[in-house]
Amino acid sequence: MASHGPPEIAMELHALSRAKLVHSFRQQLKASSLPLFGFVLLQGGEEQTRYCSDHVMLFRQESFFAYLFGVREPGFYGAIDVSTGKSILFAPKLSEDYAVWSGKIKPLSSFKERYMVSAVHYTDEITKILKTHYRGPGKPLLYLLSGLNSDSNKYSIPASFEGIEAFEKDLTSLHPILTESRVFKSELELGLIKYANDISSAAHIEVMQKTKVGLKEYQLEMIFLHHIYMHGGCRHCSYTCICATGENSAIIHYGHAAAPNDRTLEDGDMALMDMGAEYHFYSSDVACSFPVNGKFSDDQSLVYNAVLKAHNAVLSEIKPGVSWIDMHKLAERHILESLAKGGVLVGEVDAMMDARLGAVFMPHGLGHFLGIDAHDPGGYPQGTERPTEPGLKALRTTRELKEGMVLTVSPGCYFNETLLKKAMEDPTLSAFINNAAISRFMRFGGVRIESDVHVASNGCENLTDLPRETWEIEAVFVGGSLFLNSAFCLLTLDLLV
Amino acid sequence: MASHGPPEIAMELHALSRAKLVHSFRQQLKASSLPLFGFVLLQGGEEQTRYCSDHVMLFRQESFFAYLFGVREPGFYGAIDVSTGKSILFAPKLSEDYAVWSGKIKPLSSFKERYMVSAVHYTDEITKILKTHYRGPGKPLLYLLSGLNSDSNKYSIPASFEGIEAFEKDLTSLHPILTESRVFKSELELGLIKYANDISSAAHIEVMQKTKVGLKEYQLEMIFLHHIYMHGGCRHCSYTCICATGENSAIIHYGHAAAPNDRTLEDGDMALMDMGAEYHFYSSDVACSFPVNGKFSDDQSLVYNAVLKAHNAVLSEIKPGVSWIDMHKLAERHILESLAKGGVLVGEVDAMMDARLGAVFMPHGLGHFLGIDAHDPGGYPQGTERPTEPGLKALRTTRELKEGMVLTVSPGCYFNETLLKKAMEDPTLSAFINNAAISRFMRFGGVRIESDVHVASNGCENLTDLPRETWEIEAVFVGGSLFLNSAFCLLTLDLLV
Repeated sequence: MASHGPPEIAMELHALSRAKLVHSFRQQLKASSLPLFGFVLLQGGEEQTRYCSDHVMLFRQESFFAYLFGVREPGFYGAIDVSTGKSILFAPKLSEDYAVWSGKIKPLSSFKERYMVSAVHYTDEITKILKTHYRGPGKPLLYLLSGLNSDSNKYSIPASFEGIEAFEKDLTSLHPILTESRVFKSELELGLIKYANDISSAAHIEVMQKTKVGLKEYQLEMIFLHHIYMHGGCRHCSYTCICATGENSAIIHYGHAAAPNDRTLEDGDMALMDMGAEYHFYSSDVACSFPVNGKFSDDQSLVYNAVLKAHNAVLSEIKPGVSWIDMHKLAERHILESLAKGGVLVGEVDAMMDARLGAVFMPHGLGHFLGIDAHDPGGYPQGTERPTEPGLKALRTTRELKEGMVLTVSPGCYFNETLLKKAMEDPTLSAFINNAAISRFMRFGGVRIESDVHVASNGCENLTDLPRETWEIEAVFVGGSLFLNSAFCLLTLDLLV
Repeated sequence: MASHGPPEIAMELHALSRAKLVHSFRQQLKASSLPLFGFVLLQGGEEQTRYCSDHVMLFRQESFFAYLFGVREPGFYGAIDVSTGKSILFAPKLSEDYAVWSGKIKPLSSFKERYMVSAVHYTDEITKILKTHYRGPGKPLLYLLSGLNSDSNKYSIPASFEGIEAFEKDLTSLHPILTESRVFKSELELGLIKYANDISSAAHIEVMQKTKVGLKEYQLEMIFLHHIYMHGGCRHCSYTCICATGENSAIIHYGHAAAPNDRTLEDGDMALMDMGAEYHFYSSDVACSFPVNGKFSDDQSLVYNAVLKAHNAVLSEIKPGVSWIDMHKLAERHILESLAKGGVLVGEVDAMMDARLGAVFMPHGLGHFLGIDAHDPGGYPQGTERPTEPGLKALRTTRELKEGMVLTVSPGCYFNETLLKKAMEDPTLSAFINNAAISRFMRFGGVRIESDVHVASNGCENLTDLPRETWEIEAVFVGGSLFLNSAFCLLTLDLLV
């Protein structure tokens, strides 16, 4: 188990990310006829306690800081000299108490070595060190991170430290360039995303193998968590596990504290498992759907295959130059077509598309950028606008795809009571709905199939490795026991010998 | 597995906590000749995102709010009418989007039923409802929570809402009474703490059974997490798991992001596992120490038995009227005596005690209150002062024990390089240290044994159920395999039949 554990982390990943940022940044400065002086300065995350208590929440580095420096410890600052490309980390000065309560106090040189930066100093030296290194005229210039995250609608908080008033500040240049840098993944970044996908895929298979009627949803969550940490060294998930069964699978982001994966699995349920491991900050975002009893019913096959057809169609179309909004519509079209063929909908698919009927069954966007965040930033660069039509307005990006992007492809088809009721009261939408047929699906829940893809030069690479056909999934359920049986037989033989 | 899962939660626990608070509060108001009017008003926790991203961290209710209302959902307020004892919850009004993304929108009546309160309204009605219910003269009076947590040195943030300026505010009365109320546990609270202890104890045993040289520390963490969630329904731990082996076991709060349980277990290591499950907000805080190869060496036995003797001596002394500071000193005395007997220390134990030598080996306090927080509040009520002497200053309480308190008893003996070096440079302390002997222990790490106890009317009840004697632990290691073997044999027989 420990012998073939998680891979070593190549910390040059972050040195390369810094070099890439500096390159883009200097191009931008040149293009704007601005001088090549100043420092990019980021403040890393701090440990947080739970409300007023001393319960320390497990620290996870802020994502922009993780991207540029890869630092796992709290309380750091990082600077990059725009003129030289050199990077400086500032580490917190730890008290003697730290050595008793929290661990050996590492010398600054150990951080320099681990994080492959030009120099490391203490955080109380930021002003002094940056002033010393600055080669431009006037007050030293700091490029600080301030900008909108289009998924959260929150702004990043620019670095601050004692003595910052001695510096000139630029709050607008860094965020768009750094965000755009994160959109295109390096080979080393891809390697981590692939690893996170590999371990998540294996964990999803173990979940399927162990799923049975009578278990609790949270037990499936724990099978996943156990696999990724025990066998993959992944302490964090990319997001809270969504382990939805039965009707719960119509809830897109089920699994949070108010809906905590606590239902008991029943015969005939569909399960929608959306869970992804994180490894050295890099995410995976993977969803599987399957019947909890291991055998698809006709209705389950109908909905599942509708979504699978959409998933596969999108995967076969993705390549540089393709518009993501077109991919979303392609997925919608396949789902609507299948539902029409299955008799759930009636009428012309083109008319359904015009009426935006797809949004009733797939209210979320087709997918999103993936990287250090599950919803990686960069979906709506400054100046681009969100669509306003149903379904399309939920898209986390509408960009034209380019080589090096990593996105999730996650078509879904849900029978959500709220959305269906609204549609059935709408004269245009209700005309497409076969009321008799749809009533069979009111407690069905939903299906989502989510894979992570890398846009390659002439197509895409699917980073997720999972059984997707209905017969493959059914075989995992049967094969799961077969596998256990064969291992058991070997053990038995061993004992008899 | 699912058939004998976690126990049902008796929500009257929180109704009883509210009644207890109202009773104390009214007594206090009467004693101060204050009118029995006004509302206790608390604001529950909100979901938090990670920095500027939309990554939602798994919500866990604020502890005072959890104590009085037991609400697992974010965004609530809770009020208790001091004059009538009636309680009102205020739930957030959720948008239609919530039903699509996060779950069915529950009617207010379902919260009224689940949380056993007198009424439930929406949060935007707080001002209106409280004004309507107020029976006193003048502006309605709000008792808000504001006070120091003596473990974190942070202040609780009083509730705030739109329209609060229409109320009179009292920021001083509530915190001490509510904190003191939490110090004494009801039968229902004890039941949850006992359950958290039961599942933690069983999980610790599974960890021991599966420990072997070559594993990573984090794999032991995962065995624990798996046990408590899979078999116990515990999604949260009371604190980040401390899975320290070898030298790491000298670090009291190992296991955080900067020291993330990532060492490989080596033959000859001691392991210090400090891990506790949380169930419906209630904590356990349990530590075991054992050799990773399952067999105590002479030096390991010496240190382990020193700590066990301290642990058992304290358990046999605890009862109402006993001073916690005396218990701490009792533990220190046993540890120093054992180290002296083992030849690690030289000289008179009384002299060692006078010199505060105990703090070199046990720098933390003997234990702390336990409840909804692992470090439950109330250790230093207003007006009491912290000791300043080495070791004693780390005590989280110095109170006289009373029936109904729940505390951890966690003596430890560590060979911490920083503390030992300092002691060996100190003329008084170094005189007690046998340099030749102590050099054997410089990479030993440390031992901690932690049990949770309930102070009963004439003694104490140990809520933690673990093998503690060295021979018992060694038997778990052997018995672990035996157990697996017997299960395996049964399976084999089954197959042969």
